This record gives sequence, C-alpha cells and structure tokens, in this order.
Amino acid sequence: MKKLVLTGAAGRLGSYLREPLSKLCETFVSTDRVDDLGKLYPNESYVQADLTDLAAMEGILEDADMVVHFGAIGDEAPWDDILQSNIIGAYNVWEAAYRNGVKRVVYASSVHAVGMHLKTDTIGLDAPHRPDTYYGLAKCFCEDLASLYWDKRGVEAVCLRIFSCAQATNARSIGTWLSYDDLIHLVERSIDSPVVGFTTVWGISNNDRAVVDNSKAGHLGYRPKDNAEVFAKQVFADTPPLDNKDLANLCIGGPFATVELGNSGVASLGVVDDRKKI
Amino acid sequence: MKKLVLTGAAGRLGSYLREPLSKLCETFVSTDRVDDLGKLYPNESYVQADLTDLAAMEGILEDADMVVHFGAIGDEAPWDDILQSNIIGAYNVWEAAYRNGVKRVVYASSVHAVGMHLKTDTIGLDAPHRPDTYYGLAKCFCEDLASLYWDKRGVEAVCLRIFSCAQATNARSIGTWLSYDDLIHLVERSIDSPVVGFTTVWGISNNDRAVVDNSKAGHLGYRPKDNAEVFAKQVFADTPPLDNKDLANLCIGGPFATVELGNSGVASLGVVDDRKKI
Amino acid sequence: MKKLVLTGAAGRLGSYLREPLSKLCETFVSTDRVDDLGKLYPNESYVQADLTDLAAMEGILEDADMVVHFGAIGDEAPWDDILQSNIIGAYNVWEAAYRNGVKRVVYASSVHAVGMHLKTDTIGLDAPHRPDTYYGLAKCFCEDLASLYWDKRGVEAVCLRIFSCAQATNARSIGTWLSYDDLIHLVERSIDSPVVGFTTVWGISNNDRAVVDNSKAGHLGYRPKDNAEVFAKQVFADTPPLDNKDLANLCIGGPFATVELGNSGVASLGVVDDRKKI
Amino acid sequence: MKKLVLTGAAGRLGSYLREPLSKLCETFVSTDRVDDLGKLYPNESYVQADLTDLAAMEGILEDADMVVHFGAIGDEAPWDDILQSNIIGAYNVWEAAYRNGVKRVVYASSVHAVGMHLKTDTIGLDAPHRPDTYYGLAKCFCEDLASLYWDKRGVEAVCLRIFSCAQATNARSIGTWLSYDDLIHLVERSIDSPVVGFTTVWGISNNDRAVVDNSKAGHLGYRPKDNAEVFAKQVFADTPPLDNKDLANLCIGGPFATVELGNSGVASLGVVDDRKKI
Amino acid sequence: MKKLVLTGAAGRLGSYLREPLSKLCETFVSTDRVDDLGKLYPNESYVQADLTDLAAMEGILEDADMVVHFGAIGDEAPWDDILQSNIIGAYNVWEAAYRNGVKRVVYASSVHAVGMHLKTDTIGLDAPHRPDTYYGLAKCFCEDLASLYWDKRGVEAVCLRIFSCAQATNARSIGTWLSYDDLIHLVERSIDSPVVGFTTVWGISNNDRAVVDNSKAGHLGYRPKDNAEVFAKQVFADTPPLDNKDLANLCIGGPFATVELGNSGVASLGVVDDRKKI
Amino acid sequence: MKKLVLTGAAGRLGSYLREPLSKLCETFVSTDRVDDLGKLYPNESYVQADLTDLAAMEGILEDADMVVHFGAIGDEAPWDDILQSNIIGAYNVWEAAYRNGVKRVVYASSVHAVGMHLKTDTIGLDAPHRPDTYYGLAKCFCEDLASLYWDKRGVEAVCLRIFSCAQATNARSIGTWLSYDDLIHLVERSIDSPVVGFTTVWGISNNDRAVVDNSKAGHLGYRPKDNAEVFAKQVFADTPPLDNKDLANLCIGGPFATVELGNSGVASLGVVDDRKKI
Repeated sequence: MKKLVLTGAAGRLGSYLREPLSKLCETFVSTDRVDDLGKLYPNESYVQADLTDLAAMEGILEDADMVVHFGAIGDEAPWDDILQSNIIGAYNVWEAAYRNGVKRVVYASSVHAVGMHLKTDTIGLDAPHRPDTYYGLAKCFCEDLASLYWDKRGVEAVCLRIFSCAQATNARSIGTWLSYDDLIHLVERSIDSPVVGFTTVWGISNNDRAVVDNSKAGHLGYRPKDNAEVFAKQVFADTPPLDNKDLANLCIGGPFATVELGNSGVASLGVVDDRKKI
Repeated sequence: MKKLVLTGAAGRLGSYLREPLSKLCETFVSTDRVDDLGKLYPNESYVQADLTDLAAMEGILEDADMVVHFGAIGDEAPWDDILQSNIIGAYNVWEAAYRNGVKRVVYASSVHAVGMHLKTDTIGLDAPHRPDTYYGLAKCFCEDLASLYWDKRGVEAVCLRIFSCAQATNARSIGTWLSYDDLIHLVERSIDSPVVGFTTVWGISNNDRAVVDNSKAGHLGYRPKDNAEVFAKQVFADTPPLDNKDLANLCIGGPFATVELGNSGVASLGVVDDRKKI
Repeated sequence: MKKLVLTGAAGRLGSYLREPLSKLCETFVSTDRVDDLGKLYPNESYVQADLTDLAAMEGILEDADMVVHFGAIGDEAPWDDILQSNIIGAYNVWEAAYRNGVKRVVYASSVHAVGMHLKTDTIGLDAPHRPDTYYGLAKCFCEDLASLYWDKRGVEAVCLRIFSCAQATNARSIGTWLSYDDLIHLVERSIDSPVVGFTTVWGISNNDRAVVDNSKAGHLGYRPKDNAEVFAKQVFADTPPLDNKDLANLCIGGPFATVELGNSGVASLGVVDDRKKI
Repeated sequence: MKKLVLTGAAGRLGSYLREPLSKLCETFVSTDRVDDLGKLYPNESYVQADLTDLAAMEGILEDADMVVHFGAIGDEAPWDDILQSNIIGAYNVWEAAYRNGVKRVVYASSVHAVGMHLKTDTIGLDAPHRPDTYYGLAKCFCEDLASLYWDKRGVEAVCLRIFSCAQATNARSIGTWLSYDDLIHLVERSIDSPVVGFTTVWGISNNDRAVVDNSKAGHLGYRPKDNAEVFAKQVFADTPPLDNKDLANLCIGGPFATVELGNSGVASLGVVDDRKKI
Repeated sequence: MKKLVLTGAAGRLGSYLREPLSKLCETFVSTDRVDDLGKLYPNESYVQADLTDLAAMEGILEDADMVVHFGAIGDEAPWDDILQSNIIGAYNVWEAAYRNGVKRVVYASSVHAVGMHLKTDTIGLDAPHRPDTYYGLAKCFCEDLASLYWDKRGVEAVCLRIFSCAQATNARSIGTWLSYDDLIHLVERSIDSPVVGFTTVWGISNNDRAVVDNSKAGHLGYRPKDNAEVFAKQVFADTPPLDNKDLANLCIGGPFATVELGNSGVASLGVVDDRKKI
Repeated sequence: MKKLVLTGAAGRLGSYLREPLSKLCETFVSTDRVDDLGKLYPNESYVQADLTDLAAMEGILEDADMVVHFGAIGDEAPWDDILQSNIIGAYNVWEAAYRNGVKRVVYASSVHAVGMHLKTDTIGLDAPHRPDTYYGLAKCFCEDLASLYWDKRGVEAVCLRIFSCAQATNARSIGTWLSYDDLIHLVERSIDSPVVGFTTVWGISNNDRAVVDNSKAGHLGYRPKDNAEVFAKQVFADTPPLDNKDLANLCIGGPFATVELGNSGVASLGVVDDRKKI
C-alpha cells in the first residue's frame, strides 16, 4: 500500500494505531484537530485539519489507498457536537474518499450503535440498530452511510463495533474488553483483507464472557488473542453486587444505556428517565 | 385528543392528511415553511416555521399530544440540503416532542431506507437498513433516532416506510403503490393505537404484487384496501420490456437504486456508477 | 366420530362448546366438577368427576375418539390450586387418553404461556415459552406434556392458545379478542383435521390489530371471521390514555403481566414487584 | 409478447394452459411428443418434438420471448426415464432458451421437491430441498438449474411448486388442492411480472388448510381464489381415519413420501422400506 | 458471598460440587433427604430436609445469597415421583428463594428437556422444548418456572442443561460427555457472573463431537476444557454398529428417547411404543 | 469395518485418501477408470470400472460397509461430460450402495454447490443451493440424491463441501484452503461417526479467514488443525489489488462464479456474461 491515512490520530485509540499503521504503507498521513502530534514515525506526516472541513479532507485523502477513520468525539456529548464531528465529519470522510477513488474506509463504530440490546441475548451482527446515546446514534448513521457508499459508489468499509478498549477495571469490561493488541490486529485485518465490501465486526477480545457473537464476520479473519478473564477475580472481588434491574447492568451498552442524552442542558434540570430500571 | 400537530402540511402528502387529521383532535396545528397554507379546516391553525429552528418547533409542540412529522425534502437532494431538513429537522422535532412531553411521533419514513434490497427477497420489517440515496440515509437516521427516544425517553414512534404514494402509472408502482386512502388509514391507525412503543410498518397498499411483508406490524392494525392491480393491465401494456439486469428494476427502491447521489455536483461530471447493473 | 368427551363442560367456555361439539359425534360426554349441568343436548351425557381423579378420567375416556380438554381453573390462582387442577388434572387427562387409545387431545392452552412477550414483537408460534403467571406456567407445562405424549406415545394434540374470549370491552381486547363463534370454529377444525401431530395455534379472531402471527399453523385451516375492530371506536372513546411504561399495556399477556403471583398469601403482604414498569 | 412456447402441451396440465396462454401472445407454439394435438387455437401451432433433442428445442425456441416448460413425466417413474425426460429434457430447454436469448422459463416444479417435510411445519419457500421420489429429485435439479442460468446467464425463471392440480377427492387434497383456474392465474402472473429473476412459488389454491406459506413470493402477485374447503365435508365423510404414523399422512408429499423409488424393478422384489412409518 | 445453599448434596453430582462450592462462600449449607452426609468441609453445615417441604426450604434459604438446586430424582421415574420431587420440589425452592430475597437459582436442568431433537440438527439454545420423558418434562417445567420468577419477581436463574456427566463409556457419550471438572467450572461461572437474568446453557464438555451449539450463552463465560475424544477410539472399538433407525441413536436424549414413560405400571404390561423406530 | 470402497482412487484427492482409508478397514477396494493404480497398500485391491456402469458398481460394493465416493470430473466441464460422470455416475453409486445394504456414502461435494453466495455473508450450512457451474449443479443434485436415499431407503450420507484442497497460493485460498491433513481428518470422522443420517459439512481448514460457518455440523466432530494464515503474508505480497466488483472476488465460489458454463462450445464463441460484474 502506498498511502494510508488515519483520522483522529491524536485521540486515545488513534495514538495506539499510529505506529502499527505506519508499518503497513509507504506514506502514512496522520490528521487531527490538534496543533502538533509530537514526534512522528519515520514515514509519517501530520496534517492539522478539522473533520468538518470537506475540502481539507479531500486534500488529505488525495492518492490515498485507504483511510482509517477514528476521528470523532469519543464519548456521549450534546447533540450539536455529535452532529458536527461524528455525523458531518464522517460524511466528509466518505465523500472525500469517494472523490479520490479511495478503496476502503476502516471505521471506528461502536457497541453503542446497538447498546440497548440485552447482554443475555448474545446478539450477532444481524441484530438491528438500537442506539443508547447520541454517540451511538451517530455510529448507526455512519454504518448506514458506509452501506450506501458501498452499494452506490463501490467504496468498501469495515465498521468496527468497538467495545471497552481501555483497562479492564470494572465488572462489565470482563465481558466487553478489547485489548490494544487485539484492536491493532483487528485494524490490520480490516486493511489486509483483499475484498471486504461492507462488513461490520465486533471489536472485542477473546474474553470468556464475550457478550456478542462474531461468527458472521468470519471472512475478515479477526482472531483476538487476549482475554479479560485474567482480570476477573480481582475485579469481581472489588465490585459490590450489581443491581440486576438496572439497564446499565443488563444492556451491552453498559452505563450508556442509562446515561442522560446530552442535549442542550435539559438533562441537568433533573429530567429523570423512568426507563433506567426495568 | 386535544392537540395534534402536522409538519410538512404544505407538502404533497401533508396536504392529503390535513382534513382527516383535523377530525381526530380538538386543536389541529399545521406547520410548514410556506407563507400561507390557503383555506384552513375549522379547527386548524397554521404556523409558518422552519424545521431547522428548534425553538420554533418547541413552541409549536407545546401541549401537543402527538405530532405527525411529514416535513422534509421529499426526494433525493444534495447532502447539505438533506442534512438540514431531513436530519437536523427531524432531530428538532423529536427533541421538541420530548421537551413538551408529547406522547408519540408518527413519522414519514420511506422504502428508501432499505431500497437496495432485492424485490425478489420480499423482505419483512426485520431486514437491515440498506439505503439507496442520501434521502434514504436520512430515513435510516430518523428510524434510529426514534428508537433512541423510545428506549431512553419514552417518546413513542411509528415509522411509516412509505412506498409509491402517487398515481400508479409505471410498472414498479403496480407492486409499490400506496393509495391516498390507505395512507390516511395508516396514519389514523398510527394515532389511535393505544400503545405502539417503537414500531416500523410498510406504507404500501393491498397490492397483489406487494414487494414486502408487513406481518411483524400486525399489532398496528393497518389493513389497506386498495390494490394497484386494477391499473396493471394498462400500465404493463404501456411499458416496454424492463432490463432485468438494471438495479432500478431489481431493487425495491426502484430508480433510487441507481440515482446519482446528490452531492455537490460531482455526479454531473459524469462519474458513472458501475454498480447500476448487476 | 363415535364418542367425544369435553372436560370443563360447566365452565364459561365449555358451556359454549357443548352444543356444537354434540353435533360432531354420536355420543357426547360432558364432565366437570359440578353436580348438575342442567338440560342436556340430545346425545349428551354428563359425568361428574374431578380432574385430579385419574381413575375417573380413565373411565370417562373409555372408547372415546377424542377429548376436548377445557377443564381447569380459568384464572390466576394460588400455586397449590393451579398444581391440582391445571397440572395434575391435565396429566390425568393425557394419561387416561393414552391408556384408552384416544386419538387426540384438543387443549385449552392460553396466551399466558407466552404472556411476557411484547405485543410490538408480533410473535409467531415459534416464540419460546414466557409465562406471566402460575396459570400461564401450567399452560406451558401442558404444551410440553402434549409434545411428550405425541413424540413418545402417538397421542395427538392441538394446543389452542386462547386470547380474550369474552366481550371486547377494553382497549387490549381490540387486538386480542376471540369471538365465541371463532372459538367454536377453531375447536371444530382441531377435531376434523385428519392428522395434526402436535400443533399449537393462536386462538384469536381476525382482528385488524391481532398481536400474533398464526402462519405456522396454516395446515389446521383456522380462518377466523370476526373482527374486534367493530368495537374499537367506542372502546377507545371510553379508555383513558394508557401508560406505555406499564407492562400490562406492553405485553401480550395484558394485566397478567403485572398480576401478583398467587402464592400463599405473600403478595398480600405488600411485596411489590419492581418489574411492573419498564 | 410476440412468441410464447409451451412444452408438454399434450399433458394433463398443459392441455389446460393452451387456451389461456394463446391469448397472451401473437404466436403461440405448442410442443410435445404426440403426433397430433387435435384442434389448435387460432394463433397456435404445434411442433412434435422430444425434449431430449436439444437441436429440436433450440429450433422451437427461436425468437421466443418466454417458454412455459411443463413437458416431463408427470409421476414417479424409473430413474432412467426420469433422467431422460425430466433432467436431460429440462437442461435442453434451459440451454435452448439461453442460446435464443429467451427472457424467461416458467417451470412446472412440484411439491415433491420438498415432499419429505412435515405438514405440521407449514414451511415457507426457504425450506431446504427434501425430495420424496426420483420425480421430486428431478424437480430439485431443475430449480438449481434455473438458479444457475439466472445467476450466470441472466435467464429468468419462475419455479411453480405445484401441489394437487386435479379434483379434490381425498383428505390430503383439502389442504393441497390447486384448482385449474388458480393454476392459470399463477402461470399468467409468472409471465406478466416485469422482472422475476429466480423465483419459486407454491402452486396451491387459497385453501383454508393450505400446508405451506407463500409470503416470500409476494412480489409475484399470485392471489389464488379457489378453496378446497368446499369439498371438505364430503371428502372427510368418505375418508376412514388416517394413520397418523404413516409418513404419507404426515408429509406434504403425501403418498409420494412412502412410494417405492422407481428404479429398475428392485422395489417389486419386496424390498420393504422401514422408514414409511415413524 | 456470605451464604450459599446446595440442594441434592448427597446426590451423585451434588457430591462433586460440595468442595468447590464451599470455597466460594463464607457459609455453605448442604441439604438432602439422607440422614447424614458424612464428613463435612470446614465451612459446611448439613440440614436434612425434603424438597417437598416448603417451610423447611424457606428456613434453609434464610439469608442465602444463592442456591444451587441439584436436588431431584436423577432419572426417569413414575409420574407421581417426578411430580413430588422434581416439580413440587422445584417450586418450593424458587418460592423459598423469592421469599428470602435470594438473588439467584443455579439449576440442574437437563438435555432431556429437549431430548427428542435430532442430533444431526445441532440445535442451539433457542430450540423449543421437546422432552423425552417425565424426567425431561419436569426440566421443561422448571425452566419455565425460572423464566416466570425472573420476569415477575426478579429472581435470577441459570438453567444448566446437563448432558452425560459420568464416565464416557458408550458411543453417545463421545458427543455428550460433561466432565466433572467442566461441571464445576460451569457452576462456578453461573455463580460468579455479575448479572445473568434468565439464562440457559448446555452443560457439555468441549467434545469434538458436541451435539449442540452454546453460542447464545456466550455472556456466561463457560469455556469447557475436557474432550471426550480421548475415549473415542476405545469406545468405538467396543461398540457394535448402531441402528440408525433407532431414535435412541438419532435423538440427543439418547436412550431416553425410547424409554418407556414411567407411569403407574402400564409400561410393564408390554404396551409397545411404535415410535421408537422412525 | 470389514470392507471400504473408494471411488476416484486415481484422482488427485483420492490419491491422498488411499493410505489413510486402507488403515480403517480389513478390505480396502479402490476403483477408478485408469488401467492401473500402481503400487497398492497391503490390504488394498484395485478394480477398474466406470461410474457410468451400474452393474460394475453393484459388483464392487458387494458386502461393503461404506463407500467414499470421490469419483467424478473434478472441474467445470461441458454439460454432457458432467451428466455422465457426476450425475449418472453418482446415481449408480447410491443405487449400488442401496442394493448392497451399504450403510453410508461419504461424498465429495463442493463449495460450488453454493458458490454464488457472497463471502461477506459467511453463510452456514442452511444456506440454499446456489451453484456456480455445471460442476456445482451436479453437486447440488448429489446432495439431494443423498437426502432422498436417506429419507426413503436409510442409506446414510455425509456430503463434504470441499473448498480449495490444494496449495494455498492465491488470495482466495487464504480463506478457503483445505489442507490434505484436514481432508483426511474430515473423511475419517465421516466414517467413524456412529450415526450421521444425512449430513452436510464444509470441507475447509481452520483458516483465520474461513468464509463459512460449520456450527450446524458440530455432531460430526470435524476439528480442522491447519490454517492458511501462515501463507497469507507471502501470498498477499504477490497479489495485485483485487477488483471488488468482480464476482470472482466476491463470491465463495471464486473464479467459478464467473467461469463460462461448459456447454457445447457456445462460450468459446464469445458470448459474454454481463453478470460477471456487479
């Protein structure tokens, strides 16, 4: 591969991806909103840009083979913020990719696109969208956008429904952990697969208690190696009994299943959501 | 019902709904972007407003019981236009509904949310999103938005996946027609059903050749009465043989399955979509 | 058919069945716990017996071709009562049928075997058991008993999952009504079908808003003719808005979805079920 | 349509189709193995030919728009006979259609392609092949042949899985009857549908007790009008009790589920099939 | 966990569980019908009680966090015995658990709840109940009871569908073996999972030839380690050819698929079940 | 096992099977069309015969316990050739097996029976037939033949849907490879399984990127050990970018999805298949 682009390069997950991605291509271009990314890898260059600037995206993706799109707000946020970064920003990336003939978008989708499903259902990749937040709603949008650009314009996409890519320090993460190594492995497979069309895949490690079923993405070759079970004993010892009527404990979206929607301040006025408890 | 609001009241379908909806409530409020709606029905009032104005929507929905949301661009359009009217506008309606304690949104979704499915698959309501245009993509977004507001905030929604609500004058419409009477019946059932939660339903008449299966929406009680078969003989006589390799003839989205995406003029430069033919 | 037996002949539904069933056979035997059934139909005889008495059941079913088993407590009740009448009583009927070489049991099962499913799911006959009460639990038991006796001993069974077989006077019943005529038609088809093996079927009229899908029982030929929609306008006018967070309004079991389990008086001590509201 | 060809024109079902098919086209060509078809319809011509003669088939299909392929042995027969007429003959028709650019084959498939399924399963069109005879096996072959020619060569096909197209005079036929009028209607819809790709459909009337579910062929617009229930009372009165352990009574293939396979005389030696009874 | 209760502690499987369970809690209470359990583990106490005694059960479960319910007749038996121990006894355990606020029941269900399914179907956890014996019927009942107590009263349950938990000495067990270590692991996971709601899981080792699919119970984290394949060569060498028309060899319930139902002596009179052979 | 027969013993895959199969039985009979098989294994005998000769097949299978049927044309070929070897030849094997009371046929089916399915669908064993060639069409026929002989005559069958059993030297094979060792393991399990009824199974190694899901064949105990991922890096380095609109790269049948059908020379005249590109 000649040129690969990473958006969100300054973000938490983007930072982990820079080095491994830089090794997969001749020219590696990082982009984000920050002024400076610090020390760069040998074949890496950094371009400061905002996802909401289509022209800038179009320039950055010139001659690119693929783009790994991790740039977005990485948490629940007010609608207007999600709209700008996570919806309009994503459109710009796909449209810029199309205009430049980029072959594929590898996209950081999220479990929160389907976070309201029950963990006891152990859903597969064919479960319908069921977002738990504006954040998750934007992920749904991007998966559908990806589907559209594949069907109508032949831009391929792998949508990684990332679970808990951080230290496994709470009870939920024993089931939902995605180790950094497995994340890197997943992104690499999403890049080196010869043909992917439109593919979604759960971004979750090989946890004993994994709450979803990845069998419909077998062709992608994602074989995670880490397992949060090594943390289970300690984490459970530190965890008080969980309320089994709390949707945060029942749904695969975890606490996002009960988080207040981040609209313009209304939640802070104390509008309580009765649906938090079933 | 005391107060019912209709958005898109000046639109083609909205115009058909004004009279029947006005009879279902004490106070009927129509809204759209046009200056004047002409003669109003006895209990109807008209408020000029733009869907992109959240404060205006919040005002209009004050004390409303339900809102019938048909306001949007009704065809494929450039992304920026779809974004404003069909995405941001819809968010504003749901958010305004929530802030006002409105019980339910009856929403004009569309077949184009799933338009790339093959008609020979006769899909049900559990088929995944597969939009055929930006227009369809916005419908996908709104269905997911509706799901979110039901799961998190208890705002009910019926998403009507409207097919061909117009004269049945071409071969596709013999399968996809939705008569105006059946549209009205469908909206009425969406309003008078005591509890709907989050429901999607195909907006299609009782055509012999209906291309979808509505059995998963049985609880809604939609029983269409019209049947495009009465037009079939004449329409088929007027139709030259259809190319059975053209996605426009194979997909339930019809011509939208091959329409150029309406982005900023690129399509007009002659970028041909290889995928139009399978 | 020479001999047909009806249990629960003095019950509300049994009373409606006596006349039509008496016309389907040469010898019609009614049985129940009451002393006297009143005036009998020409070929009808009445035998007082308790379902919990296996020997009595065995005697009554001697030389019978089929038994229509409607005898049981017809409402939620304390566990010990359900156990006697609805579980042990049913065992006795099937065992007596087997010992006498009876070909088929037509059984009054109930929606309450699956009452905790959401009405917006419009489930089919393949949905798993999900009882809402001890009453429903006993129906689950009997369906499994019927399956066992068919698989192991060749006793056929039709399990009628009866919905609201009474006047349609509340909002739920507009979707769940089973008219008496349709009940009779359903039982007749369950009897005259040449071979049924083990069949379950929804006992519901042809309501516009029927909340379940009977397509998997097509072979039985049940074609209901009545439609609760004729009552809808009046019933809805008399109904205050329903709480859409109340499981009684969301689940197909209706109020049974929130009824206290009828165990030995504990419920009356005020043990509140947090799960009544989602 | 200019030219339409019917194979098996002298057969029982073919005879019923000649008149209605002749009205759908300018030139109607009948073909079969017999010397003479008798009196012809105005625009009908008859060509004597054997299905096993590819060159003859290629000649007959010259300039044809569609072919209605009903020519084959219409009952279970020894393998060698089935091989010639029903397998090789069908290949010749499809290959001749392809070479001549014929748009579509409307094919007389049969329930016997899936005859070993239980009638109590009320299968849909997605049930796997499960033939009950060599006759049914050849139907499976042809459906797969049709799939291949559509996928690889764009020849469309409608495979009609015909049930009991004859007088409804036995108990099974109350569920499986296909009236001649409904057969004609089905063939007409298979012809006038603008695009069908590869479609299978159950050829069964609107019987109350229809043993299969046609909902996956909705796009074809087949709406049968006849109902074998009108014969039920008399037929059941004339029918002795059926053995519910006999596969002939349990499977949708009926007596074919237990018929001896028609191979070279072995069956007549008394090789008993243990599987006839479950 | 403070207090854990094990029923059936003197039983074959219960005996294997005492030591590992005693290590998971501060207070471990064993109960069974026998007079004496022999030497106890350090924190273990034994209470003699009969499952049919609700008051006794209620006393034993006082202040318990969870109960592991393995007490029952462990084989096919006459109905009256199954009724007492396996149905009424189970009700008593769940009811006592509820009254005491016990969080969870871990229940020894069995493959025999679904034993009539074919092993070549490799069913998942969503297959319907299909019991093979009264023993299996009682397991069906308890699973439905567990579903009810979770839905209505918030008592969690894990239903372990235990296969062949014994030496793997016959051909069937090469596919159905559950090693004692895997049983212990399964029970431990059923206990330490923070939230389980109502979960069923196959209790089967990691056999090469495992006849069921556990993917719908992924969230539980059961990862068996033993594999009966190590015994296969020897066992198969010792096994004469199996009759592939015998349901005992075709169904996952094994010999229970053909065992006589254990009712009051009738079976011993030689009433032969025709269905043993398909 | 006393006597085992292998057809196609001189073929590429047959050659690999001779030695391991010879060790599973007392008498091992190889057959093929060639004059001489070269050096034989100790208990092996060779019989020259043509599959199209039923009498010869009947003689070879006399007293055989099982037959491993790998004899056929192993590539796409003209219809007439496929018809003789792959259809008539297979019929002869099954019929000869039946006449001799042979317990089981282990059959070399192929991915090409379903080759037109998309690899991104990761289909299971329940996907419908969708052949990609005459070669694949014959595999479909044989699977249905196997189903028929099991249902009607009790001849068991395992249909191995073999993928790429050769060196993994191209990009597709990284997902579709079947190593020779895994092939041998698969055939051995197909033989030593006590009861298989009618079973299909994917013949594919444990590739990271395996394009199908074998979970429905769990009972067979096939646990492949090889993984084409070891070749991936080198193969991908040697592979130019693949056209993601080419069905050969999208379908699991690979190049067969676009190969010309091998009929009587027409393809060589330049009849181009429009469907090669989607």
